[in-house]
Parts: sequence; structure tokens; C-alpha cells
Amino acid sequence: MPMRYGRSVVFQGELGAFSQSAAQKLLGDNLRFLPCPTFADVFDVLKQKKADHAVIPIENTLHGSVHDNYDLLVECDYFVTGETKLRISHQLITMPEVTWRSVKQVFSHPVALNQCRRFFQKYPQIKPIPFYDTAGSVKMLQETRTPASGAIASVTAASIYGGRIQKRDIEDNPENYTRFFLLSKQRKAPKTTAGPGWKTSLVFSTPNQPGALFKALACFALRNISLTKIESRPIQGKPWEYRFYLDLEGPDNSDVVKRALSNLSELTDWMKILGSYQSTL
Amino acid sequence: MPMRYGRSVVFQGELGAFSQSAAQKLLGDNLRFLPCPTFADVFDVLKQKKADHAVIPIENTLHGSVHDNYDLLVECDYFVTGETKLRISHQLITMPEVTWRSVKQVFSHPVALNQCRRFFQKYPQIKPIPFYDTAGSVKMLQETRTPASGAIASVTAASIYGGRIQKRDIEDNPENYTRFFLLSKQRKAPKTTAGPGWKTSLVFSTPNQPGALFKALACFALRNISLTKIESRPIQGKPWEYRFYLDLEGPDNSDVVKRALSNLSELTDWMKILGSYQSTL
Repeated sequence: MPMRYGRSVVFQGELGAFSQSAAQKLLGDNLRFLPCPTFADVFDVLKQKKADHAVIPIENTLHGSVHDNYDLLVECDYFVTGETKLRISHQLITMPEVTWRSVKQVFSHPVALNQCRRFFQKYPQIKPIPFYDTAGSVKMLQETRTPASGAIASVTAASIYGGRIQKRDIEDNPENYTRFFLLSKQRKAPKTTAGPGWKTSLVFSTPNQPGALFKALACFALRNISLTKIESRPIQGKPWEYRFYLDLEGPDNSDVVKRALSNLSELTDWMKILGSYQSTL
Repeated sequence: MPMRYGRSVVFQGELGAFSQSAAQKLLGDNLRFLPCPTFADVFDVLKQKKADHAVIPIENTLHGSVHDNYDLLVECDYFVTGETKLRISHQLITMPEVTWRSVKQVFSHPVALNQCRRFFQKYPQIKPIPFYDTAGSVKMLQETRTPASGAIASVTAASIYGGRIQKRDIEDNPENYTRFFLLSKQRKAPKTTAGPGWKTSLVFSTPNQPGALFKALACFALRNISLTKIESRPIQGKPWEYRFYLDLEGPDNSDVVKRALSNLSELTDWMKILGSYQSTL
């Protein structure tokens, strides 16, 4: 049940979603949760300034980048002010009255289903059925009591919606982590420029010229600034042109990063600093 | 109906899928089609050498890269020997007995549903329902005659499965193109090294060192070799490490590309040439 007080945090999914756990890790307790059906809905809430924060998944070690969120960040006025990583474990959950042997279909988000391929190979009589959300699939079973059905979601979701965990940790690959961004109204920067463990995320596009990306990366390489991630996304309406997203080590108010960004602005036709932040372990 | 003779081409989706149209554009007529439910199934057929060719979507100008296929290419022994681009237009299709006004739910592949967001905003009474395939959703309606239902798929799919097009070209953005790779058993290279319009695709990983990607791109930039695409994908089992995919201009048997690739091999801990090819317009 949403609380009346505390900072408001919008996220995609139902209560019990992995994003909610990430929000608690990033912001602690006394939060007011605003669950939304889609990522677009999350960013709509931010556009109307109706939440203090958002927590969004940005990449997963098996699935890769969450492209919807990369695209939506470009138009968003909130800043990236934090990141955290969660180990993702998938549980096969049913309502208590459903026996494991009777399960014929299992609902979950397509990404979660895809991360449990071996489970479905081992039990070919069970059919995976795409659903809009992991926790939402358990909530749906609680409401509909659909017979012979299960859901794949978190331990938290099982607990919130009164589900029983029938098979634990059914993901194919245990090296399954999701990285989340915390978005906030106010930009964040370290008080001193020597703060260790800071990262900066930015996005830019270059003129469509040979070597343009190489020159952009040179701004950082020639200053010994490490990149931890690069991602390219198509620019809508400009077929075969791309935006580039970089995560680099260092806060955006340090001298060396400032100089690199100033250098980069000479080489790009558009750029945006998404924010500077530290990891919450 | 599959033909008895001709070269065999495996693709994801049912007959009438966009990949089938791409195959016809790339290979002409007299083909034997092997439709498969998933991309993993397509690559299983290749592993068993049971098809002459595969045609797979590799990127879309709205949705971005098709990551399943990027990942599956790494383990595949077939070579990229061609590429083509198709304009993707989505049609709202029903069986002939269904009236437009009665439609309450529409089945299609999640990517296609996502590319028709404005259509669903305009008609909020119609519910989008994810299905495994665009053409397959029309086939399903033909078989089940589910009432009050439609599908989003191609003009070809409407024709193959006896559907009626109720609304034409319902995609949000007309700049909607998909790029397809042709995969073949034998590597392809131009007879002379001066062949214009050739591209080479490759994938590599670098040691986890600062500036590693910058140095890799230098192999091409310093030789004035243009890159047309860069893509990063997580390496499974190695959280927060990435493989990089490059498309560059030039065939892999030209002197300058050979030297660049030899240079690159000094800087990577693993690399694979996926193939050289020309575009079929």
C-alpha cells in the first residue's frame, strides 16, 4: 500500500518489481511508490514533475541495454543522480491452491521468460506466456485465480501477492544482474572534484563523417578518462544515423572531465549530460 | 506452400514474414522456405547445415539492433554474404467476417505493436496483445476465427492467410526500415579488391583496459576506413564486459582492410570476421 509521506518514486511494474527493490536500496525507507504499467508512463510522470525520483533499469548482464529507457532519457529533464546493481533471481510462483504438477502455463515479462529458457526446455509441457510485468503476473494470478498457471517473478512479488514459490532460482545464468539509474529533479555533483567512484553519463550525435566516433572517443582517451560503457541507438526519422551514449569515470565538475566535454562539444552536433553519480553497493 | 526444388532459406516467422520478402529480394525466385518459430531455431537449422541460407533481421531504424541475432551470429559457422533493407509497413488485418468496428484486440509481435503506439492511442478500446510473430498472428486468426480480433502484419501476410486489410500503414513513423543479413555456408569476397559498395562485419572483445575501444577504432580511423555501425553487447558470464560489433566500408580481402584487421588482432583478445557483402537495393 502506498505510504502517505516520504519521497515519491515512480517505477515501471507492479509493487514487488525489481525496480522497487532497487529504489529501496538507493533511497532507503519512507518512500511513496508510484508503480506504472510502462516505461513511457514513468517518463510521463516525470514530465509532469509528479514524482521526486524515478528508478529505471538501464542494462542487464544477459539481455543488454534497456533501449526504451535510453531513448526516453534523451527527452527527460530529470538527471541521473545514482546507480545500483541488483542480482536478478527468478522464482516460479503459483497461488497456494495450485500444485506444481498441474502447471501448464507460466506468465511473465518476455525478458524474464527468455532468461529461463532451460527451465522451459526441461518442462516442455509448460508454456511460457508473455505478460507486461514480472510482479504483475503474480498479481494477476492472485486476482483471477487462473487454474494450472504460474508466474515468474521475485521473492518479494511472491510475498506481496500471497504466492507460493514452487521452484527457486530458475534463471539459466546466475551472472544475471540489472543496473538501475536513479533519476532526480536536481543535478548531483561531488563537493570536491576529487570524489572517488564518480561516473558521468552523456549522449551525443556526431556529423555523419568518417572517423567522427573515433574523434569523439579521443576527447576522453587522450585525457586518460576511462569509458565504462558505450551504446548506440538509431535516431528516429534519420535512418542509419545513430546517437551514442557514454558512461565515463569521473564527475562532470572535475577539471579533466570539463575539458573533455568542452572538447567533445566541438566535434558533436548535439550533446546532453545525463548526470553524474556514484554507485550504491 | 514450400517448393520442392531450389535453394533452401531458413527464416524466423511464418510464411508472409518480412524476412521472407527480404529473402526474395536477396535471392530471387525458386526458393524453398523453412519458416521457424524463433531466431534460436533458425540458428539451430544452420548448426545442422540443413539450409543453404538464412535471412535474419539485424537492425530496424526505430527499434534498433536485433540483439538475439547479434548474439547468435557469434556462434554461427555461416558467413554474412549479403544485406538488404526493407521499408516496413504495418497493416491492421482481420478475417473477412470481422467488421472493423467490432475489433477489441489486436495480436502481433511486440516490436510491431510498439511501432503502432499512436494507432492504439487513437483507438483506446482496442487492446494490443503480444504474439510470437506478425504473419503468425494472421495465420492464427485464420485457424481459430477468434471473434472481435485483428492482427498487425504485412500486405503479403494478409494475402497469404485470406485476411482483409482494415487500416493501412498504421505505423507511427514512416521512416521504418529493417536491415536484413543474408547468411550462407561459403564466405563471399569480390574478385578484385576495387569492388565498390562492399562492407565487412566483424565482432571482437578487448582486454578490460582504459582506452581499449579507442585503440581498436584507431585501426580503422588511421587508415581512413569508414565505420557505418558500432554495437556493444554484454558478454554472458562476464558482468559489465562487452563485445563490440563493427560494420566497415570495404571488402575483407582489400589490402587496407587486411592491414587494419591484422592491426586490430594485436589489440583484441578475441575477434571474428562475420563476412563481406554488398547491399541489394
